[in-house]
Parts: sequence; structure tokens; C-alpha cells
Amino acid sequence: MMEDGGETPMRETMDVNAVIQALKDVTRQREDTVPLHAPVFAGNEWRYVKECLDTGWVSSVGRFVDQFERMLAEYTGARYAVATVNGTSALHAALMLAGVLPDHEVIIPAMTFVATANAVTYCGAIPHLADIDHRTLGLDPDKLEAYLREIAEVRNGVCVNRRTNREIKALVPMHAFGHPADMDKLLAVAEKYRLVVVEDAAESLGSYYKGRHTGNFGLLSALSFNGNKIVTTGGGGAILTNDPELARLAKHVTTTAKLPHPWEYNHDRVGFNYRMPNLNAALGCAQLEMLPEFLRRKRKLAEIYKERFGRVRGVRFFEEPDFAESNYWLNVLLLDPGCGDARDAVLATAHKEGIMLRPAWRLMHELPMYRECPRMDLSNAEDIARRLINIPSSADLCPDAD
Amino acid sequence: MMEDGGETPMRETMDVNAVIQALKDVTRQREDTVPLHAPVFAGNEWRYVKECLDTGWVSSVGRFVDQFERMLAEYTGARYAVATVNGTSALHAALMLAGVLPDHEVIIPAMTFVATANAVTYCGAIPHLADIDHRTLGLDPDKLEAYLREIAEVRNGVCVNRRTNREIKALVPMHAFGHPADMDKLLAVAEKYRLVVVEDAAESLGSYYKGRHTGNFGLLSALSFNGNKIVTTGGGGAILTNDPELARLAKHVTTTAKLPHPWEYNHDRVGFNYRMPNLNAALGCAQLEMLPEFLRRKRKLAEIYKERFGRVRGVRFFEEPDFAESNYWLNVLLLDPGCGDARDAVLATAHKEGIMLRPAWRLMHELPMYRECPRMDLSNAEDIARRLINIPSSADLCPDAD
Repeated sequence: MMEDGGETPMRETMDVNAVIQALKDVTRQREDTVPLHAPVFAGNEWRYVKECLDTGWVSSVGRFVDQFERMLAEYTGARYAVATVNGTSALHAALMLAGVLPDHEVIIPAMTFVATANAVTYCGAIPHLADIDHRTLGLDPDKLEAYLREIAEVRNGVCVNRRTNREIKALVPMHAFGHPADMDKLLAVAEKYRLVVVEDAAESLGSYYKGRHTGNFGLLSALSFNGNKIVTTGGGGAILTNDPELARLAKHVTTTAKLPHPWEYNHDRVGFNYRMPNLNAALGCAQLEMLPEFLRRKRKLAEIYKERFGRVRGVRFFEEPDFAESNYWLNVLLLDPGCGDARDAVLATAHKEGIMLRPAWRLMHELPMYRECPRMDLSNAEDIARRLINIPSSADLCPDAD
Repeated sequence: MMEDGGETPMRETMDVNAVIQALKDVTRQREDTVPLHAPVFAGNEWRYVKECLDTGWVSSVGRFVDQFERMLAEYTGARYAVATVNGTSALHAALMLAGVLPDHEVIIPAMTFVATANAVTYCGAIPHLADIDHRTLGLDPDKLEAYLREIAEVRNGVCVNRRTNREIKALVPMHAFGHPADMDKLLAVAEKYRLVVVEDAAESLGSYYKGRHTGNFGLLSALSFNGNKIVTTGGGGAILTNDPELARLAKHVTTTAKLPHPWEYNHDRVGFNYRMPNLNAALGCAQLEMLPEFLRRKRKLAEIYKERFGRVRGVRFFEEPDFAESNYWLNVLLLDPGCGDARDAVLATAHKEGIMLRPAWRLMHELPMYRECPRMDLSNAEDIARRLINIPSSADLCPDAD
């Protein structure tokens, strides 16, 4: 029967039930459903939120917004953090401040949450889709460089797409599911082609590339604190930057570009109502206090998954790249090449059993509004998207969590 | 001395100290400062917000978002309400759903919060500035009609600005400080010129025009629950509509245009991350329960102001128009014509005394980014803006509030 298949080379066969059993073993389902990612409120959440209600400071001014920003800056090592209403708004403002203008092209990975492409679109710019790397699930630097060599050139310090004759302004690496993209190589490509780097670090709070926190490599970057993130504010995001003038502008454009004055309502440009309310920041402060513990538990959960799925044929638990320390925000299971056809059966069976899984996002060029975007060969993204499954990753799934 | 000036016709003179004394008498300053508008949390705010934390439902899905929307619909009489992250996002989405496209013109009042103009700009459209009415502080329908007769014509069912040759798509009445604009007359103008009406009802929750709640007259409308509003969610807003298909689309575009599916991430258009988090909706549910009491107190406070300022020369307390029942969100003091020069002295003196006042917003055509917008004669707005002062209006300023 050779059930363990020890000697057999990779076989293009996979037992759906073995995958489900492994998920059950690790998640030790005790409720009706095992969510993909649920927040854990076990610290000062209620104390800080209650303080907001008791003092009446719930809106866009208040001590928790400032404190949350200070804590974020300290934690990530960025000089400045500006809290926003969500990650999408943070990325939109960051791209705008990076100089992205209508009819620019902005390079983003084909495999990302749709907000990456939407934020580019809000600027009036065009997403230009690039392929991803099997090692990181983020942008593939070598493939990108070869592609740019073919289609782009630098004229007067500006990168021009020879095919569309538009300026390629920026490069947006996204740290998928918390795993850092290969920033050194991507920065080298960006420098060569004079692209501004804006990191979409929505998923990577607590993830490090070569010892440095993600979100510190671009001119600006965006974090998210949506309800499914490692740290949540209900809805929320932040812009990180090390540039004092960009930090000042980030705060300015996210607060309707209102000029400081004790009573006058004067605004000097088209601004946005993107500031995080104090109520949400209060939750965020309590959550950030818990982040080291969340990270410890999530890395431990990842180890357990790795061990358990090591004994399941036809699948591989995705591990952090060599150069990275990941937050393992959403754990990733990759079906072996040739086993992609079983993906939907795994999703449907687990769903029926109450275990919430999720496939990769529909790739950007497969969405109707981005079908016509310029793009390179996306065969890695297409291959990975067929085989990727996100599995339950809440911090309280870790066996010693309770 | 004729202090009371009973027999004297309107005199162009005003005693700054008499205004400050009246403010002190009414607000009975007990703390260092009297805010312009502070929220009151005296109901179920704690209970509902704590329930969010206890259940882990803090983000864009949860029972309070649905409940908040139902309560809003019931209260306003609109068939549908869709909760958003703030009033600006609600207005942006409403304009988009009303069919506002790049290079359209949208008529808005010159005297409004900058978000009204910004929301038009986010659509790629151009704000077209119209004058306001001394009776309502909102759009002047007669002046607007005369102006449109001069510059616009309807061609093939579309209103065209003959001067710019652009389509004038929509009309956005704004109910300033809670006082309803003259909707019957504005709707007649809109019908004649085939303009879609989208109400900026950000300030007018609890305000009625001829017995019908504001926000029910346009195709869509926008509410705000910012920290300074009559009801707050920290930051928040809502779209109201009576059209089921627009309501469905409003929810769709504010939730990243994600197609419903248990696990797939598929989106059918460029959407927005504009959904209100459950944490904020929980606060909103508790606040809406208190709305009738807030309205009672605010109308009583307005009576007290009216009586007290009736004894101050050179100023007039602004009362709701005949056809309206206002929420008196932010109370308005108008200095007499010719006394506008004293405005800044009133603001500065009150500020020094710890009483927070505020002038009218800088008019839209006086802001650098809207200086070149098409506009009609704005003499009413210019006259009123010079003489208007918002005075403290918190619901707990009412004498029997505590």
C-alpha cells in the first residue's frame, strides 16, 4: 500500500481527507466553526476603549491616535507613522504622496488583494501587473528586471514604458500573507529604473526582512488593521515613512488638508477624510501591546502545521523565506504541482466541516476592471494561485494559548 | 444710555462683551473650556461596545452594522441605509451611484464644509458653486433658477453649461448646521434642468422639511456621524436611498465590490473600502437610541439662546425656516449687517475665555483648489460668511440636562 510513500518521489496525488484530518488535528475544533483569522482581545482593549467613552474623545482627535502612532513607529523602527481609517486609504495616500499622477503606471503583483490595484486606480494611474516568486509569494525581482529591460527605458531620469509610452512611476511590493518580498533585489531594480518604492505592508506587521521590519524599505508604506489582521482596530491602517516632510504631508492630506488654526476652516489642497478615529486607535494600542505574544503564538502554530502537514502527501506548508522572519499572518498550504485540481474539493469539504479556508485572491488580470492592464508573463502567479490555500491562523489556535 | 435700544432701528454697532456675557450666561461655564459640540454618552454605549469586544466582532461584519442601518432607515423614513466609514465617503459613493462622471459639473453651495466639494472632485467632476439663501443658509432656489436660465440649457435630456460646454449632472443641497434647504423649490429647479439631486445631509440627522426627514428628497443622500455631530460613531457616515437597486449597489461598492461567495475573492468593479466597522456601529446604535432626547435638549438650548440674544444689540440668533423643524445641530449667531468687522474680536475674546466658537467655513471659491471653479454671483454667501458665528451646542448644555 505504501501509505507513507517514503521512498516515492513527489506523486501527483493527494488525499483530500488527509488534509482535512490534519486541519482538524491542529485546530482541535471546539466550536461549530474554526475561523480563518479571529482577533484576540485579552489585554487592555476594554480599559482603553472605555476611557474613550468616559472622556468623550472618540473621534479624530485624542490621545490614543497619537499613542498608537508612537507605538507603531517604535515597533516598526519607522521614524513616522500616520494612522488612517483603513489600509486602502493608507496606500492611496502613500501613492499620492509618492508622486503617482493620472496616467502613470504603477507596478504591482498580480497576486494581491484588490485594494492594491484600487489604490493605484484612485490616483488615476494604471496598475501594471508583475509576476511573483515561488520563494516569497511576492514580486519576482529577476523576472521583473528582465521584463523591464525588454519594455522600459529611462529617459531624462524617468522610466518610460516603450509599449504604452506612459511613465512607470512606482513599484509596490506586497508582503503576501506576511512573508517579506525580496526587498534588496527589488530595491536594486527600482533604483536602476528610477521607480519610487511604496510597500504594501498591509499584511506584514511583525515581519522582518534581513532583520529590518517590513515597511521600512520604501519611500512610504501602508499597514492595515482590519478585523482579520494580526492586530486590529476594527477598521484601520497607517502610513509609515522615514521622511519628516512626507510624514507631515501624510497627516495633512488625511485630515482634509485643513490648515492649523484655533477656529478657521481653511484648506490648501484637495484632502481626504482618512484619519483613524480615537475609538479605533484605543483598541489598536491595546492590541499592539499584545503583538509580541501574538507573534510568538503564530510562529508556534506555523511550526505545528509544518510538522503535521509534513506527514500529508501532496501538500507543502509554506515557510518563511531564508532572509525573512515572518509574522505567519495567514498560514499557507501549497498543493503539489499537479494537485491543484483538488483545491476546490479541499475548500468545499473543510467549509462543510466548519473549518474556514480561503484560496488565493482571484488574480488581478482575471478581474473585469483590470483585464486590460499592461502585464508581463504571469505564469508563476497563475501556478501558485491554483494551488494555494490559506488555513486557520488565529493566535489563539496555538495549543498553549489557553 | 439706551442700553436696550428698544426704539432704535437696527444700529450698526455691537458690544463684543455683551455677546460674550450672553454666551457665558447660557453655557454656565463649569470647566476650563466650553466645547463647540461635545458628544454625550449616557445610554447603552458601554454595553454595546463591550459586546463587540467580548464577541470579537469589531470589524466590517457584525450585528451592530445591520442594526444601525435598520435604526437609521426607521428613524429617517428612508427605505435603505448603508453605513460607511465617514460622511465624505458616503457622499463620494452617493455621487458615483448618481452617475457623476469625470468632467461633469455638480452644483454645490459655496458655503459648505470642504468635503462636499472634495467628494465631487474624487469623482473627477467639477464643483460648480451656487449662492445661498438668507432664510435657510442653504442653496437659494430662485437665484439658482435665474442663473441656470442664463448659462444652461437642456439638450437631449441633458443639462449643458453653455459657457463650459460640460454636462451639469447633479445638484447637491446641503442642510447647513442642520437647517433644511428649501427642497420643494430646489427639486423643481432640478426637474426643470434634469439634474440628479443628491442631498448632503451630513449635519441634518433629526431635521425635517415640511414634516419629512431630510435625506429623503434626493435620489441618494449622505449622513455623517463624526465626533462633532448630533449622533457620533467616532467616525462614520451613511448613504440613504429609497431605491432598492441603488441600495444594493451602495453596499456593494463600499465593500470593495466583492461578489458574495463563501471563500472566493472576486470583485466585479473598482470598489472602495468604505464600510463602517462594527465597533463604530455599536456606538452608533446606542447614540441613535438617545437621539430624541438629544433633539429635545438641543431645541430647548436654541430657545434659551434665542431669548438671551434677543437682549443683545447687533446680533440675531438664527432660527429654523418656517417650513422646517431643525435639529439645531450647531447654533448660529448672525451679526447684523455692518457688524461683521466685530466677528474676529468675538471669536478671539471667546477663545481666550475658553468658549469655543467657530466662523463659517472659508467659502469654496476662496480655497486655492476651487478658485477656478465655475460659479454664479455669491454675494449672499459672502455676506453671511462674514457675519456668521457658530456657538456652543452640545446637548448637555441644556439646563435640565443634568
